[in-house]
Amino acid sequence: MERSKRLGRLRHALLERLVHYYYFVTEQQEHGCGDTVTSTRIARLMQMDDTLVRKDLAAIGVRGYPRVGFKCSEVADAIRKVLGFDETYRAVIIGIGWLGSAMASYRGFSRYGLEICGLFDCDPVKIGLMRDNLVVLPMERLPLVVRQQGVSMAILTVPVDAAQEVADFAVAAGVKAIWNFASTNLELAEAVLVRHEHISVGLAELGYQLKQAGAAGPPDAPAGKEAEA
Amino acid sequence: MERSKRLGRLRHALLERLVHYYYFVTEQQEHGCGDTVTSTRIARLMQMDDTLVRKDLAAIGVRGYPRVGFKCSEVADAIRKVLGFDETYRAVIIGIGWLGSAMASYRGFSRYGLEICGLFDCDPVKIGLMRDNLVVLPMERLPLVVRQQGVSMAILTVPVDAAQEVADFAVAAGVKAIWNFASTNLELAEAVLVRHEHISVGLAELGYQLKQAGAAGPPDAPAGKEAEA
Repeated sequence: MERSKRLGRLRHALLERLVHYYYFVTEQQEHGCGDTVTSTRIARLMQMDDTLVRKDLAAIGVRGYPRVGFKCSEVADAIRKVLGFDETYRAVIIGIGWLGSAMASYRGFSRYGLEICGLFDCDPVKIGLMRDNLVVLPMERLPLVVRQQGVSMAILTVPVDAAQEVADFAVAAGVKAIWNFASTNLELAEAVLVRHEHISVGLAELGYQLKQAGAAGPPDAPAGKEAEA
Repeated sequence: MERSKRLGRLRHALLERLVHYYYFVTEQQEHGCGDTVTSTRIARLMQMDDTLVRKDLAAIGVRGYPRVGFKCSEVADAIRKVLGFDETYRAVIIGIGWLGSAMASYRGFSRYGLEICGLFDCDPVKIGLMRDNLVVLPMERLPLVVRQQGVSMAILTVPVDAAQEVADFAVAAGVKAIWNFASTNLELAEAVLVRHEHISVGLAELGYQLKQAGAAGPPDAPAGKEAEA
């Protein structure tokens, strides 16, 4: 979901589409499915109009080739440049539970210029654990790591009750942006960029569609025990 | 991020706003912060115009009270009804790695009418593990559980390479909707509702804003080793 402060120069909707094109073409490249793609194929996968795909790509200076379509490498390069994915920046993950561990082990962030350079938790049991070649550090080390490594973002995967305090601590330590996965709104200074990821929005939408389609049930079987196979 | 098939009757943008209002008012109720909220406060937190908040709430039949604002319970009830959160439906989680475990332990799905009734993995090491009072079952049990429990949704938290095959298997087993967290697009029959959660879209947007604000760096310090504290 996308409630963010200061939307920058690109309109949100265009930025979102560009990220999707980028995702799609880099995925195609990685899977060795050839270096060309048509606007029709992109449009079909994104359930949008192919005219808009061509318009968006033209707007960032990418041209198609007759009877071939677009070159994935050219699309990816153009988007990378426009969205600044070439410039690396650094983040820490705070809260190394299931979700924090999932984030720490995710390999795809570097495509977007993000480098994870520190993991933090306040739980003594977790401090010292390894996740994806990084050691989980205690919270009091955060200010030093932020300063020494030039960290600009904190990814918050802490419980709801801890989120505001941890966010305040991270901002005081010097981070400029918070990517918040805790299911709570944060109140921070205007200058801090905040993005809340509420995955429940996706769930609510999918559930709504399922019910509209009459495919959600109600379940016939009683909940609870699974019968023997 | 929201690329979904068949958007249903409510416009996507309105549906998304309603989910956010719902999220906000139920959170306020749970934290015992009183049962009233003003449109100005909601608008401020969502960085939107308060006129639109009032318009949206009026559209679903919620009226404000002079000098008080809206009652959280009335807002929540109205949204629950409009979006069908009162009707329970069931889902399974397939792929019990970090992310699948995070999803299994998340307590908030019931607010949206979703009940998780099964966990599945193909890794023998994971089968039999407990996550949030559910035992991880082998994939071959999926069709029976879907049939017996009336499962309508599969939440996919499997690796990219397995996603298409697992999605096909789940659809063959009878699920009507796929909530896909694997970083890949799925090609499924038109009748299947699919939602891809690409959290990288959020990251890309936040990173873009950070760079626009000139706050991303480049980092002064070399990457890698953390100096001694």
